[in-house]
Amino acid sequence: MAVNLTEPEKLHPVQGVALAACTAGLKSNGNSDMALIACEAGTQAAAVFTQNAFCAAPVIIAREHIAQSSPRFLLINAGNANAGTGKQGLENALNTCTCIAEHFGQTSQQVLPFSTGVINQQLDMDVMHSGIESLVDGLGRDNWSDAAAAIMTTDTVAKGFSEQMSLAGARITVTGISKGSGMICPNMATMLAFIATDARVEAKSLQRLLERSNARSFNSITVDGDTSTNDACVLLATGSAGGDELSDDHPQWPEFTVLIERACKTLAQAIIRDGEGATKFIEVSVRGGIDANECRQVAYTIAHSPLIKTAFFASDPNLGRLLAAVGRSGLNAFDISSVSMRIDEVDIIVSGEPASDYTEERGQAVMSRDEITVFVDLGRGDVEWTIWTTDLSYDYVRINAEYRS
Amino acid sequence: MAVNLTEPEKLHPVQGVALAACTAGLKSNGNSDMALIACEAGTQAAAVFTQNAFCAAPVIIAREHIAQSSPRFLLINAGNANAGTGKQGLENALNTCTCIAEHFGQTSQQVLPFSTGVINQQLDMDVMHSGIESLVDGLGRDNWSDAAAAIMTTDTVAKGFSEQMSLAGARITVTGISKGSGMICPNMATMLAFIATDARVEAKSLQRLLERSNARSFNSITVDGDTSTNDACVLLATGSAGGDELSDDHPQWPEFTVLIERACKTLAQAIIRDGEGATKFIEVSVRGGIDANECRQVAYTIAHSPLIKTAFFASDPNLGRLLAAVGRSGLNAFDISSVSMRIDEVDIIVSGEPASDYTEERGQAVMSRDEITVFVDLGRGDVEWTIWTTDLSYDYVRINAEYRS
Repeated sequence: MAVNLTEPEKLHPVQGVALAACTAGLKSNGNSDMALIACEAGTQAAAVFTQNAFCAAPVIIAREHIAQSSPRFLLINAGNANAGTGKQGLENALNTCTCIAEHFGQTSQQVLPFSTGVINQQLDMDVMHSGIESLVDGLGRDNWSDAAAAIMTTDTVAKGFSEQMSLAGARITVTGISKGSGMICPNMATMLAFIATDARVEAKSLQRLLERSNARSFNSITVDGDTSTNDACVLLATGSAGGDELSDDHPQWPEFTVLIERACKTLAQAIIRDGEGATKFIEVSVRGGIDANECRQVAYTIAHSPLIKTAFFASDPNLGRLLAAVGRSGLNAFDISSVSMRIDEVDIIVSGEPASDYTEERGQAVMSRDEITVFVDLGRGDVEWTIWTTDLSYDYVRINAEYRS
Repeated sequence: MAVNLTEPEKLHPVQGVALAACTAGLKSNGNSDMALIACEAGTQAAAVFTQNAFCAAPVIIAREHIAQSSPRFLLINAGNANAGTGKQGLENALNTCTCIAEHFGQTSQQVLPFSTGVINQQLDMDVMHSGIESLVDGLGRDNWSDAAAAIMTTDTVAKGFSEQMSLAGARITVTGISKGSGMICPNMATMLAFIATDARVEAKSLQRLLERSNARSFNSITVDGDTSTNDACVLLATGSAGGDELSDDHPQWPEFTVLIERACKTLAQAIIRDGEGATKFIEVSVRGGIDANECRQVAYTIAHSPLIKTAFFASDPNLGRLLAAVGRSGLNAFDISSVSMRIDEVDIIVSGEPASDYTEERGQAVMSRDEITVFVDLGRGDVEWTIWTTDLSYDYVRINAEYRS
């Protein structure tokens, strides 16, 4: 049950981008499981990948390929992560790139592979090959929704973002899709997300924009603290809409930045709204920190606490658990007498003391909502960071205990 | 359902120690909820406390008192943690010490208070006072089991340790009790544990011994990663058994050390066996590290992963989750080609590659056990650290969603 999340009504095509999806047979539920995204020559691509040392074979290959060449094809499969698969896994990932490249008369370096699903199993290459055959014949510009569905694993809702605006002399579109529901705690990257625009964007500006947007979106969400082996986020700019080339110093760059940030944040929050077993969407906003790291440290300590997550699930204002989490978050020279804390509009702690107007009834009322913000003011600096997380429900346990069965 | 844990059959009295327990009315289930431990003049005491910055009022008072004076009384209540209670909480904790001290004609500094239970609620002082009245009249040397029961919260089994040995010219006894089941991830301390011996022990050696034993026992367990506000562990040595004074340089010190370490480890593991919702007892042993910190870092990353914990609950050999956890544990310059991993006798990863003799059936067989050891060899040093944890079950969610209702 996703929290206030429905399928996107309309995903606008992006000029210069074509997509295909198919059912190759990698998912035990028989749903579609492979997608291909093709983009025109001249497309600029920016990407960020997982920092997990046990990163998946396709992540290793995609990192190498994007460093060598401008990508023309993104090949994605769900149902098998091709992670923890050793040398055989690398060979298999590379082989899928070669298949796509040969069909279109390109080099294999122009293909980026992405996989998501069960870790520690080799890909069934017969299934992959038959899927690729179907994908290469099915490319079309209107297939964004099909691709969003094909990359799902434990997701219950396909995730997309699509907006259009006039910018730098052209009518441009930004459309993106993402997937993810569990093993979500991206580190310098994300679960799978693919965002495309037909704006013309200078390459270095594009990569910097993705990294900055990513930090405040995909890198600020957590379901379970488990950084995946396969996280990746790609931002494509085909330039097909025409207009000026956008870069850091273009006067309309701030407007474009806001749009891309909104795309990233919407797709990242969609992953949390559809987090495994989620019944609540919880924002944790920490301010008054000396630097962003300590704000994140406190926010993630709250967001990863199973005790706090179960209290949210139960709508139980057992708020001592919040105090305990802030207290154990490991800040240096931490003086609790400067700390204040509230949930939505209800004060819990004011300057280290219990709030005088707090009542169990008021606590109960805010904890019962399905969208809740926890505010923590550390009272020792002026930096702020916000992250988004879920509660911990019976369904979380069911989903993860039964994932492979 | 505790994992292979039953109540201790016999807790031997310790010469020089008397105990009492009573039902004051702090627990909603009507079980006994207060205990008093009294020890003779001349007793040496060592203690370690939680490092949570939001530590509870009794922790603050107990730390001050033990720094000023040798304790004669430990007053413990369960059902209310007296944490997050501000100045009023400190006054209440001090008031209970004064009550005990006045009754016995001692100073309040000779009384250490301990509380465990719900955070963020003021103590009901009428209930505390009536409890204290009952405790001071009920002291007896045979009441260890009653005290072990009175300090329980979500524990399902009372926890104790008791052994006797001949040492340094005397027949000595070591008896201890502990409590804890959730909010378990002690940091430089523990949940509540009280261990007493009638051996004669020199004060500084005693404190060092407790700190070292604590590091490899109470500080090496985790249920949920949540370091409590109230953790404390006290080791009392009354000296009433006579014999030589034991200290670091006594020839039989190693034997005494082994005994105290066994007491700490048994009581700490009992907390894990009785962890909230636990159906499995899981040992995580990391070796081949450069230092103890990185071994602990990898071990706790595994032990705190909800994905791994639910896989253990389901007896599902979804072992890619183990790889992902090791990979995201954040070690510097981490080369996965040197990593090996096995569960009990079944190899999973050998030098970074999937083990050639691994089969789903063999994985299933080891994951079905109720006591499981995960071995990780980082292959880059010669340091080892072992911790103990639980799985994550439906009952964990139920217990924590319903804790206060």
